[in-house]
Amino acid sequence: MADRADVTLACIQFEPIIGEPDHNLARMEAHIREAHARGADLVVLPELADSGYVFETMEETARLARPIPGGASAARLCALAAELGLHIVSGLAEEAGGDFYNSALLCGPDGPIGTYRKLHLWNRENLFFKPGNLGLPVFDTPLGRIGMAICYDGWFPETFRALAAAGAEIVCIPTNWVPMPEQDPEAEAMANVLHKAAAHSNGFYIACADRVGTERGQPFIGQSLILDATGWPLAGPASRSAPEILIATVTPGALRAKRQLNEFNNILGDRRTDVYG
Amino acid sequence: MADRADVTLACIQFEPIIGEPDHNLARMEAHIREAHARGADLVVLPELADSGYVFETMEETARLARPIPGGASAARLCALAAELGLHIVSGLAEEAGGDFYNSALLCGPDGPIGTYRKLHLWNRENLFFKPGNLGLPVFDTPLGRIGMAICYDGWFPETFRALAAAGAEIVCIPTNWVPMPEQDPEAEAMANVLHKAAAHSNGFYIACADRVGTERGQPFIGQSLILDATGWPLAGPASRSAPEILIATVTPGALRAKRQLNEFNNILGDRRTDVYG
Repeated sequence: MADRADVTLACIQFEPIIGEPDHNLARMEAHIREAHARGADLVVLPELADSGYVFETMEETARLARPIPGGASAARLCALAAELGLHIVSGLAEEAGGDFYNSALLCGPDGPIGTYRKLHLWNRENLFFKPGNLGLPVFDTPLGRIGMAICYDGWFPETFRALAAAGAEIVCIPTNWVPMPEQDPEAEAMANVLHKAAAHSNGFYIACADRVGTERGQPFIGQSLILDATGWPLAGPASRSAPEILIATVTPGALRAKRQLNEFNNILGDRRTDVYG
Repeated sequence: MADRADVTLACIQFEPIIGEPDHNLARMEAHIREAHARGADLVVLPELADSGYVFETMEETARLARPIPGGASAARLCALAAELGLHIVSGLAEEAGGDFYNSALLCGPDGPIGTYRKLHLWNRENLFFKPGNLGLPVFDTPLGRIGMAICYDGWFPETFRALAAAGAEIVCIPTNWVPMPEQDPEAEAMANVLHKAAAHSNGFYIACADRVGTERGQPFIGQSLILDATGWPLAGPASRSAPEILIATVTPGALRAKRQLNEFNNILGDRRTDVYG
Protein backbone atom coordinates (compact mmCIF):
# COMPACT_ATOMS: atom_id res chain seq x y z
CA MET A 1 0.00 0.00 0.00
CA ALA A 2 3.08 2.22 -0.09
CA ASP A 3 1.85 3.93 -3.25
CA ARG A 4 -1.43 5.08 -1.73
CA ALA A 5 -2.02 8.75 -2.17
CA ASP A 6 -1.90 11.44 0.48
CA VAL A 7 -5.26 12.91 1.47
CA THR A 8 -5.80 16.58 2.29
CA LEU A 9 -8.39 17.04 5.03
CA ALA A 10 -10.29 20.24 5.80
CA CYS A 11 -12.38 20.98 8.89
CA ILE A 12 -14.89 23.81 8.53
CA GLN A 13 -15.47 25.60 11.84
CA PHE A 14 -18.40 28.02 11.43
CA GLU A 15 -21.57 29.25 13.15
CA PRO A 16 -24.83 27.73 11.91
CA ILE A 17 -28.01 29.62 12.74
CA ILE A 18 -30.89 27.65 14.29
CA GLY A 19 -33.84 27.33 11.95
CA GLU A 20 -32.10 28.88 8.91
CA PRO A 21 -31.09 25.97 6.65
CA ASP A 22 -30.88 28.08 3.48
CA HIS A 23 -28.47 30.48 5.18
CA ASN A 24 -26.47 27.61 6.68
CA LEU A 25 -26.20 25.68 3.41
CA ALA A 26 -25.04 28.82 1.63
CA ARG A 27 -22.30 29.30 4.25
CA MET A 28 -21.35 25.64 4.04
CA GLU A 29 -21.07 25.83 0.27
CA ALA A 30 -18.88 28.92 0.42
CA HIS A 31 -16.59 27.29 3.01
CA ILE A 32 -16.39 24.05 1.01
CA ARG A 33 -15.43 25.99 -2.12
CA GLU A 34 -12.71 27.75 -0.15
CA ALA A 35 -11.44 24.44 1.25
CA HIS A 36 -11.42 23.02 -2.29
CA ALA A 37 -9.40 25.99 -3.48
CA ARG A 38 -6.91 25.18 -0.71
CA GLY A 39 -6.55 21.60 -1.93
CA ALA A 40 -9.00 19.66 0.20
CA ASP A 41 -9.91 16.10 -0.81
CA LEU A 42 -12.20 15.51 2.18
CA VAL A 43 -14.14 18.31 3.91
CA VAL A 44 -15.69 17.83 7.37
CA LEU A 45 -18.48 20.11 8.67
CA PRO A 46 -20.01 20.41 12.15
CA GLU A 47 -22.88 18.50 13.74
CA LEU A 48 -26.38 19.60 12.66
CA ALA A 49 -24.72 22.06 10.31
CA ASP A 50 -27.83 22.59 8.21
CA SER A 51 -30.37 23.01 11.03
CA GLY A 52 -28.58 24.50 14.02
CA TYR A 53 -28.44 22.72 17.36
CA VAL A 54 -30.72 23.97 20.15
CA PHE A 55 -34.16 22.67 19.24
CA GLU A 56 -37.05 23.79 21.40
CA THR A 57 -39.97 21.72 20.16
CA MET A 58 -40.66 18.56 18.22
CA GLU A 59 -42.48 20.69 15.66
CA GLU A 60 -39.28 22.66 15.05
CA THR A 61 -37.32 19.42 14.70
CA ALA A 62 -39.85 18.09 12.22
CA ARG A 63 -39.69 21.29 10.21
CA LEU A 64 -35.87 21.24 9.97
CA ALA A 65 -35.03 17.53 9.62
CA ARG A 66 -34.71 16.15 6.07
CA PRO A 67 -34.21 12.74 4.51
CA ILE A 68 -30.67 11.51 3.82
CA PRO A 69 -29.67 11.22 1.05
CA GLY A 70 -32.89 12.34 -0.65
CA GLY A 71 -33.53 15.64 1.15
CA ALA A 72 -32.51 19.12 0.10
CA SER A 73 -29.45 19.40 2.38
CA ALA A 74 -27.93 16.08 1.33
CA ALA A 75 -28.73 16.71 -2.33
CA ARG A 76 -26.98 20.07 -2.28
CA LEU A 77 -23.86 18.62 -0.63
CA CYS A 78 -23.77 15.67 -3.03
CA ALA A 79 -24.06 18.02 -6.02
CA LEU A 80 -21.21 20.11 -4.66
CA ALA A 81 -19.05 17.00 -4.10
CA ALA A 82 -19.69 15.99 -7.72
CA GLU A 83 -18.97 19.45 -9.09
CA LEU A 84 -15.73 19.87 -7.12
CA GLY A 85 -14.59 16.24 -7.21
CA LEU A 86 -14.14 15.88 -3.47
CA HIS A 87 -15.63 14.05 -0.49
CA ILE A 88 -17.77 15.71 2.19
CA VAL A 89 -18.84 14.65 5.68
CA SER A 90 -21.47 16.83 7.30
CA GLY A 91 -23.67 16.65 10.33
CA LEU A 92 -27.33 17.00 9.26
CA ALA A 93 -30.73 16.77 10.96
CA GLU A 94 -32.29 13.62 9.47
CA GLU A 95 -35.92 12.64 9.03
CA ALA A 96 -36.57 8.98 8.31
CA GLY A 97 -40.00 7.37 8.40
CA GLY A 98 -41.33 9.99 10.79
CA ASP A 99 -38.38 9.61 13.18
CA PHE A 100 -35.55 12.10 13.64
CA TYR A 101 -31.83 11.40 13.98
CA ASN A 102 -28.73 13.47 14.64
CA SER A 103 -26.85 12.17 11.60
CA ALA A 104 -23.82 12.54 9.38
CA LEU A 105 -23.71 12.12 5.62
CA LEU A 106 -20.65 10.95 3.68
CA CYS A 107 -20.76 11.75 -0.04
CA GLY A 108 -18.23 11.83 -2.86
CA PRO A 109 -17.96 12.78 -6.51
CA ASP A 110 -20.17 9.83 -7.46
CA GLY A 111 -22.93 10.61 -4.97
CA PRO A 112 -23.98 9.58 -1.46
CA ILE A 113 -21.78 6.90 0.16
CA GLY A 114 -23.22 6.40 3.63
CA THR A 115 -25.01 7.72 6.68
CA TYR A 116 -24.15 7.54 10.37
CA ARG A 117 -26.70 8.20 13.15
CA LYS A 118 -25.36 9.47 16.49
CA LEU A 119 -25.34 6.66 19.03
CA HIS A 120 -24.87 8.68 22.23
CA LEU A 121 -27.30 11.58 22.54
CA TRP A 122 -26.32 14.54 24.70
CA ASN A 123 -28.68 16.22 27.14
CA ARG A 124 -31.90 17.58 25.55
CA GLU A 125 -31.11 15.92 22.22
CA ASN A 126 -32.85 12.99 23.92
CA LEU A 127 -36.13 14.91 23.67
CA PHE A 128 -35.99 15.34 19.91
CA PHE A 129 -33.89 12.58 18.34
CA LYS A 130 -33.92 8.81 18.42
CA PRO A 131 -30.64 7.11 19.33
CA GLY A 132 -28.66 5.93 16.31
CA ASN A 133 -29.50 2.50 14.95
CA LEU A 134 -26.92 2.02 12.18
CA GLY A 135 -23.96 0.97 14.33
CA LEU A 136 -20.55 2.44 13.47
CA PRO A 137 -20.09 1.78 9.77
CA VAL A 138 -16.78 2.29 7.95
CA PHE A 139 -16.87 3.08 4.23
CA ASP A 140 -14.23 2.10 1.70
CA THR A 141 -13.53 5.12 -0.50
CA PRO A 142 -10.81 6.09 -2.98
CA LEU A 143 -9.33 8.22 -0.17
CA GLY A 144 -9.19 5.40 2.37
CA ARG A 145 -11.51 3.75 4.85
CA ILE A 146 -13.66 6.48 6.45
CA GLY A 147 -15.63 6.26 9.70
CA MET A 148 -17.81 8.86 11.37
CA ALA A 149 -18.86 9.72 14.92
CA ILE A 150 -20.62 12.77 16.36
CA CYS A 151 -19.71 14.85 19.43
CA TYR A 152 -20.61 12.93 22.65
CA ASP A 153 -19.86 9.64 20.83
CA GLY A 154 -16.22 10.61 21.37
CA TRP A 155 -16.61 10.32 25.15
CA PHE A 156 -16.86 6.52 24.74
CA PRO A 157 -13.62 4.71 23.86
CA GLU A 158 -15.74 1.90 22.41
CA THR A 159 -16.76 4.23 19.57
CA PHE A 160 -13.18 4.38 18.35
CA ARG A 161 -12.43 0.72 19.07
CA ALA A 162 -15.40 -0.31 16.94
CA LEU A 163 -14.23 1.95 14.10
CA ALA A 164 -10.67 0.59 14.39
CA ALA A 165 -11.96 -2.98 14.34
CA ALA A 166 -13.81 -2.14 11.12
CA GLY A 167 -10.57 -0.87 9.58
CA ALA A 168 -11.09 2.90 9.79
CA GLU A 169 -8.12 4.98 8.64
CA ILE A 170 -9.70 8.44 8.80
CA VAL A 171 -12.40 9.22 11.40
CA CYS A 172 -14.51 12.31 10.73
CA ILE A 173 -16.18 13.96 13.71
CA PRO A 174 -18.90 16.52 13.06
CA THR A 175 -19.43 18.08 16.50
CA ASN A 176 -21.06 20.84 18.55
CA TRP A 177 -18.85 20.66 21.66
CA VAL A 178 -20.19 22.46 24.73
CA PRO A 179 -18.33 23.32 27.96
CA MET A 180 -18.03 20.30 30.28
CA PRO A 181 -18.81 20.40 34.02
CA GLU A 182 -15.80 21.67 36.01
CA GLN A 183 -13.92 22.55 32.78
CA ASP A 184 -11.48 25.39 33.33
CA PRO A 185 -12.37 27.64 30.36
CA GLU A 186 -8.70 28.59 29.98
CA ALA A 187 -7.44 24.99 29.89
CA GLU A 188 -7.34 22.69 26.87
CA ALA A 189 -10.81 21.34 26.10
CA MET A 190 -11.46 17.82 27.40
CA ALA A 191 -12.89 17.16 23.93
CA ASN A 192 -9.41 17.70 22.52
CA VAL A 193 -7.86 15.42 25.17
CA LEU A 194 -10.32 12.62 24.42
CA HIS A 195 -9.68 12.68 20.68
CA LYS A 196 -5.90 12.85 21.05
CA ALA A 197 -6.10 9.73 23.20
CA ALA A 198 -8.40 8.01 20.70
CA ALA A 199 -6.15 8.75 17.71
CA HIS A 200 -3.08 7.56 19.61
CA SER A 201 -4.60 4.37 21.01
CA ASN A 202 -6.22 3.38 17.71
CA GLY A 203 -3.58 4.54 15.27
CA PHE A 204 -5.85 6.45 12.91
CA TYR A 205 -6.33 10.03 11.78
CA ILE A 206 -9.18 12.05 13.34
CA ALA A 207 -10.69 15.24 11.95
CA CYS A 208 -13.02 17.12 14.34
CA ALA A 209 -15.09 20.00 12.90
CA ASP A 210 -16.77 21.99 15.67
CA ARG A 211 -19.08 24.99 15.53
CA VAL A 212 -18.69 28.32 17.33
CA GLY A 213 -21.05 30.91 18.75
CA THR A 214 -23.85 30.90 21.32
CA GLU A 215 -27.33 29.67 20.37
CA ARG A 216 -30.39 30.23 22.59
CA GLY A 217 -28.02 30.60 25.55
CA GLN A 218 -25.90 27.54 24.78
CA PRO A 219 -22.24 28.39 24.13
CA PHE A 220 -20.04 26.24 21.88
CA ILE A 221 -16.27 26.01 22.27
CA GLY A 222 -14.68 25.78 18.80
CA GLN A 223 -11.18 24.26 19.00
CA SER A 224 -11.63 22.06 15.92
CA LEU A 225 -8.70 19.72 15.49
CA ILE A 226 -7.03 17.45 12.92
CA LEU A 227 -4.98 14.72 14.59
CA ASP A 228 -2.17 12.53 13.38
CA ALA A 229 -2.41 8.82 14.14
CA THR A 230 0.12 9.47 16.92
CA GLY A 231 -2.50 11.64 18.63
CA TRP A 232 -0.65 14.92 18.01
CA PRO A 233 -2.31 17.82 16.18
CA LEU A 234 -1.57 18.29 12.48
CA ALA A 235 -3.79 21.38 12.47
CA GLY A 236 -5.51 23.27 15.27
CA PRO A 237 -6.89 23.49 17.80
CA ALA A 238 -8.76 26.27 16.02
CA SER A 239 -10.08 29.43 17.66
CA ARG A 240 -12.56 29.11 20.54
CA SER A 241 -14.97 31.58 18.97
CA ALA A 242 -14.18 32.46 15.35
CA PRO A 243 -14.93 30.67 12.06
CA GLU A 244 -11.83 28.95 10.68
CA ILE A 245 -10.82 26.35 8.12
CA LEU A 246 -8.20 23.82 9.23
CA ILE A 247 -6.20 22.03 6.55
CA ALA A 248 -3.83 19.05 6.96
CA THR A 249 -2.52 16.30 4.72
CA VAL A 250 -2.46 12.71 5.94
CA THR A 251 -1.06 9.47 4.57
CA PRO A 252 -3.27 6.41 5.09
CA GLY A 253 -0.51 4.28 3.56
CA ALA A 254 1.71 5.17 6.53
CA LEU A 255 -0.63 3.85 9.20
CA ARG A 256 0.73 0.32 9.24
CA ALA A 257 4.17 1.66 10.16
CA LYS A 258 2.84 4.18 12.67
CA ARG A 259 0.95 1.47 14.56
CA GLN A 260 4.16 -0.54 15.05
CA LEU A 261 5.65 1.29 18.02
CA ASN A 262 8.83 -0.77 18.24
CA GLU A 263 10.08 -4.29 17.50
CA PHE A 264 7.72 -5.79 20.07
CA ASN A 265 4.68 -3.51 20.22
CA ASN A 266 1.74 -2.82 17.92
CA ILE A 267 -0.87 -0.43 19.27
CA LEU A 268 -3.77 -2.49 17.90
CA GLY A 269 -2.16 -5.93 18.01
CA ASP A 270 -1.19 -5.71 21.68
CA ARG A 271 -4.79 -5.77 22.90
CA ARG A 272 -5.28 -8.53 25.48
CA THR A 273 -8.45 -9.88 23.95
CA ASP A 274 -8.04 -13.00 26.09
CA VAL A 275 -8.67 -10.81 29.15
CA TYR A 276 -11.24 -8.22 28.07
CA GLY A 277 -12.76 -9.60 24.89
CA MET B 1 -22.45 6.81 50.88
CA ALA B 2 -22.42 10.55 51.53
CA ASP B 3 -20.56 10.04 54.80
CA ARG B 4 -17.64 8.19 53.22
CA ALA B 5 -14.30 9.65 54.18
CA ASP B 6 -11.96 11.64 51.99
CA VAL B 7 -8.75 9.87 50.97
CA THR B 8 -5.38 11.59 50.68
CA LEU B 9 -3.30 10.15 47.85
CA ALA B 10 0.46 10.48 47.43
CA CYS B 11 2.49 9.67 44.32
CA ILE B 12 6.21 9.13 44.89
CA GLN B 13 8.28 10.15 41.86
CA PHE B 14 11.88 9.05 42.40
CA GLU B 15 14.84 7.39 40.64
CA PRO B 16 15.33 3.70 41.35
CA ILE B 17 18.78 2.26 40.56
CA ILE B 18 18.91 -0.92 38.49
CA GLY B 19 20.15 -3.89 40.51
CA GLU B 20 20.17 -2.08 43.88
CA PRO B 21 17.05 -3.22 45.75
CA ASP B 22 18.39 -2.34 49.20
CA HIS B 23 19.13 1.20 48.11
CA ASN B 24 15.77 1.49 46.34
CA LEU B 25 13.77 0.13 49.29
CA ALA B 26 15.53 2.55 51.63
CA ARG B 27 14.58 5.45 49.34
CA MET B 28 11.01 4.17 49.05
CA GLU B 29 10.72 3.91 52.83
CA ALA B 30 12.02 7.45 53.33
CA HIS B 31 9.60 8.82 50.74
CA ILE B 32 6.67 6.87 52.21
CA ARG B 33 7.44 8.25 55.66
CA GLU B 34 7.50 11.76 54.23
CA ALA B 35 4.17 11.17 52.44
CA HIS B 36 2.72 9.86 55.72
CA ALA B 37 3.90 12.97 57.51
CA ARG B 38 2.04 14.98 54.85
CA GLY B 39 -1.18 13.11 55.55
CA ALA B 40 -1.20 10.35 52.95
CA ASP B 41 -3.68 7.49 53.33
CA LEU B 42 -2.61 5.74 50.10
CA VAL B 43 0.91 5.97 48.67
CA VAL B 44 1.70 4.97 45.06
CA LEU B 45 5.24 4.17 43.91
CA PRO B 46 6.64 3.61 40.40
CA GLU B 47 6.84 0.45 38.30
CA LEU B 48 9.64 -1.97 39.25
CA ALA B 49 10.53 0.40 42.07
CA ASP B 50 12.57 -2.20 43.96
CA SER B 51 14.59 -3.59 41.05
CA GLY B 52 15.01 -0.83 38.48
CA TYR B 53 13.75 -1.19 34.91
CA VAL B 54 16.28 -1.93 32.17
CA PHE B 55 17.10 -5.60 32.60
CA GLU B 56 19.84 -7.02 30.39
CA THR B 57 19.69 -10.75 31.05
CA MET B 58 17.35 -13.36 32.42
CA GLU B 59 19.93 -14.05 35.13
CA GLU B 60 19.67 -10.45 36.30
CA THR B 61 15.89 -10.69 36.29
CA ALA B 62 16.05 -13.89 38.35
CA ARG B 63 18.39 -12.28 40.82
CA LEU B 64 16.17 -9.23 41.36
CA ALA B 65 12.62 -10.65 41.21
CA ARG B 66 11.05 -11.71 44.51
CA PRO B 67 7.83 -13.44 45.57
CA ILE B 68 4.76 -11.32 46.38
CA PRO B 69 3.73 -11.10 49.12
CA GLY B 70 6.35 -13.40 50.69
CA GLY B 71 9.55 -11.78 49.39
CA ALA B 72 11.74 -9.20 51.02
CA SER B 73 10.41 -6.18 49.07
CA ALA B 74 6.73 -6.94 49.74
CA ALA B 75 7.41 -7.81 53.36
CA ARG B 76 9.16 -4.51 53.96
CA LEU B 77 6.34 -2.50 52.38
CA CYS B 78 3.69 -4.44 54.32
CA ALA B 79 5.54 -3.83 57.59
CA LEU B 80 5.72 -0.13 56.79
CA ALA B 81 1.99 0.00 55.96
CA ALA B 82 1.24 -1.64 59.30
CA GLU B 83 3.55 0.67 61.24
CA LEU B 84 2.21 3.84 59.62
CA GLY B 85 -1.42 2.74 59.28
CA LEU B 86 -1.66 3.47 55.57
CA HIS B 87 -2.07 1.71 52.23
CA ILE B 88 0.72 1.30 49.67
CA VAL B 89 0.74 0.38 45.97
CA SER B 90 4.16 -0.31 44.49
CA GLY B 91 5.51 -1.76 41.31
CA LEU B 92 7.79 -4.71 42.11
CA ALA B 93 9.67 -7.35 40.13
CA GLU B 94 7.87 -10.60 40.99
CA GLU B 95 9.09 -14.19 40.97
CA ALA B 96 6.39 -16.86 41.06
CA GLY B 97 7.06 -20.55 40.45
CA GLY B 98 10.14 -19.81 38.38
CA ASP B 99 8.34 -17.23 36.22
CA PHE B 100 8.79 -13.47 36.38
CA TYR B 101 6.14 -10.75 36.24
CA ASN B 102 6.13 -6.97 36.17
CA SER B 103 3.75 -6.64 39.11
CA ALA B 104 2.15 -4.29 41.61
CA LEU B 105 1.45 -5.01 45.26
CA LEU B 106 -1.41 -3.46 47.23
CA CYS B 107 -1.00 -3.69 50.99
CA GLY B 108 -2.60 -2.03 53.99
CA PRO B 109 -2.27 -1.82 57.76
CA ASP B 110 -3.48 -5.43 58.06
CA GLY B 111 -1.08 -6.86 55.51
CA PRO B 112 -1.05 -7.74 51.80
CA ILE B 113 -4.36 -7.19 49.99
CA GLY B 114 -3.69 -8.11 46.37
CA THR B 115 -1.34 -8.36 43.43
CA TYR B 116 -1.68 -7.19 39.83
CA ARG B 117 0.52 -8.47 37.00
CA LYS B 118 1.08 -6.14 34.00
CA LEU B 119 -1.03 -7.32 31.09
CA HIS B 120 0.61 -5.32 28.29
CA LEU B 121 4.39 -5.66 28.23
CA TRP B 122 6.43 -2.88 26.62
CA ASN B 123 9.35 -3.49 24.29
CA ARG B 124 12.16 -5.62 25.79
CA GLU B 125 10.09 -6.41 28.89
CA ASN B 126 8.82 -9.17 26.63
CA LEU B 127 12.24 -10.83 26.88
CA PHE B 128 12.20 -11.07 30.67
CA PHE B 129 8.62 -11.12 31.96
CA LYS B 130 5.57 -13.24 31.31
CA PRO B 131 2.37 -11.36 30.42
CA GLY B 132 0.05 -10.84 33.38
CA ASN B 133 -2.39 -13.66 34.13
CA LEU B 134 -4.45 -12.24 37.00
CA GLY B 135 -6.84 -10.07 34.96
CA LEU B 136 -7.65 -6.60 36.30
CA PRO B 137 -8.75 -7.15 39.88
CA VAL B 138 -10.36 -4.45 42.02
CA PHE B 139 -9.96 -4.65 45.80
CA ASP B 140 -12.48 -3.42 48.35
CA THR B 141 -10.58 -1.51 51.04
CA PRO B 142 -11.53 0.87 53.85
CA LEU B 143 -10.41 3.70 51.53
CA GLY B 144 -12.59 2.63 48.62
CA ARG B 145 -12.42 0.20 45.72
CA ILE B 146 -8.84 0.20 44.41
CA GLY B 147 -7.63 -1.03 41.01
CA MET B 148 -4.12 -1.10 39.57
CA ALA B 149 -2.54 -0.95 36.13
CA ILE B 150 1.07 -0.48 35.03
CA CYS B 151 2.50 1.90 32.40
CA TYR B 152 1.68 0.59 28.87
CA ASP B 153 -1.57 -0.91 30.22
CA GLY B 154 -2.80 2.70 30.14
CA TRP B 155 -2.51 2.79 26.33
CA PHE B 156 -5.50 0.42 26.14
CA PRO B 157 -8.91 1.92 27.00
CA GLU B 158 -10.12 -1.59 27.82
CA THR B 159 -7.86 -1.57 30.89
CA PHE B 160 -9.87 1.26 32.39
CA ARG B 161 -13.23 -0.04 31.19
CA ALA B 162 -12.55 -3.38 32.90
CA LEU B 163 -11.60 -1.60 36.12
CA ALA B 164 -14.71 0.59 35.93
CA ALA B 165 -16.92 -2.44 35.33
CA ALA B 166 -15.43 -3.99 38.47
CA GLY B 167 -16.35 -0.86 40.43
CA ALA B 168 -12.96 0.83 40.76
CA GLU B 169 -13.05 4.23 42.47
CA ILE B 170 -9.29 4.89 42.70
CA VAL B 171 -6.92 3.52 40.05
CA CYS B 172 -3.24 3.39 41.01
CA ILE B 173 -0.69 3.41 38.18
CA PRO B 174 2.91 2.51 39.00
CA THR B 175 4.74 3.47 35.82
CA ASN B 176 8.10 3.98 34.07
CA TRP B 177 6.94 6.16 31.18
CA VAL B 178 9.42 6.54 28.32
CA PRO B 179 9.32 9.03 25.41
CA MET B 180 6.85 7.96 22.70
CA PRO B 181 7.69 7.95 18.97
CA GLU B 182 7.17 11.42 17.45
CA GLN B 183 6.54 12.95 20.93
CA ASP B 184 7.53 16.62 21.01
CA PRO B 185 9.64 16.68 24.20
CA GLU B 186 8.30 20.15 25.01
CA ALA B 187 4.63 19.15 24.66
CA GLU B 188 2.46 17.50 27.29
CA ALA B 189 3.26 13.79 27.57
CA MET B 190 0.86 11.49 25.69
CA ALA B 191 0.87 9.42 28.90
CA ASN B 192 -0.78 12.37 30.65
CA VAL B 193 -3.32 12.77 27.82
CA LEU B 194 -4.27 9.09 27.93
CA HIS B 195 -4.88 9.08 31.67
CA LYS B 196 -6.87 12.32 31.64
CA ALA B 197 -9.14 10.75 29.02
CA ALA B 198 -9.43 7.55 31.04
CA ALA B 199 -10.35 9.33 34.27
CA HIS B 200 -12.93 11.47 32.46
CA SER B 201 -14.56 8.67 30.47
CA ASN B 202 -14.71 6.30 33.43
CA GLY B 203 -15.45 8.73 36.24
CA PHE B 204 -12.79 7.57 38.68
CA TYR B 205 -9.67 8.98 40.30
CA ILE B 206 -6.28 8.01 38.84
CA ALA B 207 -2.91 8.33 40.58
CA CYS B 208 0.14 7.84 38.32
CA ALA B 209 3.56 7.52 40.00
CA ASP B 210 6.37 7.68 37.45
CA ARG B 211 10.13 7.43 37.84
CA VAL B 212 12.77 9.88 36.61
CA GLY B 213 16.35 9.60 35.41
CA THR B 214 18.14 7.70 32.66
CA GLU B 215 19.03 4.03 33.11
CA ARG B 216 21.40 2.19 30.73
CA GLY B 217 20.60 4.79 28.09
CA GLN B 218 16.81 4.69 28.57
CA PRO B 219 15.38 8.08 29.64
CA PHE B 220 12.19 8.32 31.71
CA ILE B 221 9.91 11.33 31.60
CA GLY B 222 8.54 11.96 35.12
CA GLN B 223 5.31 14.01 34.98
CA SER B 224 3.51 11.96 37.63
CA LEU B 225 -0.10 13.00 37.95
CA ILE B 226 -3.11 12.70 40.26
CA LEU B 227 -6.38 13.11 38.36
CA ASP B 228 -9.87 14.02 39.45
CA ALA B 229 -12.72 11.87 38.11
CA THR B 230 -13.40 14.73 35.67
CA GLY B 231 -9.98 14.06 34.12
CA TRP B 232 -8.41 17.29 35.38
CA PRO B 233 -5.23 17.27 37.49
CA LEU B 234 -5.57 17.56 41.26
CA ALA B 235 -1.76 17.46 41.57
CA GLY B 236 0.97 17.54 38.96
CA PRO B 237 2.13 16.92 36.38
CA ALA B 238 5.34 16.66 38.41
CA SER B 239 8.80 17.59 37.16
CA ARG B 240 10.17 15.82 34.08
CA SER B 241 13.45 14.99 35.79
CA ALA B 242 13.43 15.57 39.57
CA PRO B 243 12.13 13.46 42.46
CA GLU B 244 8.85 14.83 43.83
CA ILE B 245 5.94 13.80 46.03
CA LEU B 246 2.47 14.71 44.76
CA ILE B 247 -0.36 14.94 47.29
CA ALA B 248 -4.09 15.29 46.63
CA THR B 249 -7.28 14.50 48.53
CA VAL B 250 -10.15 12.72 46.77
CA THR B 251 -13.72 11.88 47.73
CA PRO B 252 -14.93 8.45 46.56
CA GLY B 253 -18.36 9.30 47.98
CA ALA B 254 -18.65 12.08 45.38
CA LEU B 255 -18.19 9.82 42.35
CA ARG B 256 -21.85 8.99 41.88
CA ALA B 257 -22.65 12.69 41.45
CA LYS B 258 -19.61 13.38 39.26
CA ARG B 259 -20.62 10.62 36.83
CA GLN B 260 -24.04 12.20 36.29
CA LEU B 261 -23.15 14.90 33.76
CA ASN B 262 -26.66 16.38 33.48
CA GLU B 263 -30.30 15.34 33.76
CA PHE B 264 -29.97 12.97 30.81
CA ASN B 265 -26.36 11.76 30.78
CA ASN B 266 -24.31 9.40 32.92
CA ILE B 267 -20.75 8.81 31.74
CA LEU B 268 -20.89 5.08 32.54
CA GLY B 269 -24.62 4.51 32.04
CA ASP B 270 -24.69 5.98 28.53
CA ARG B 271 -22.58 3.18 27.02
CA ARG B 272 -24.37 1.65 24.02
CA THR B 273 -23.80 -1.93 25.07
CA ASP B 274 -26.40 -2.98 22.52
CA VAL B 275 -24.00 -1.83 19.79
CA TYR B 276 -20.51 -2.64 21.04
CA GLY B 277 -21.06 -5.14 23.86
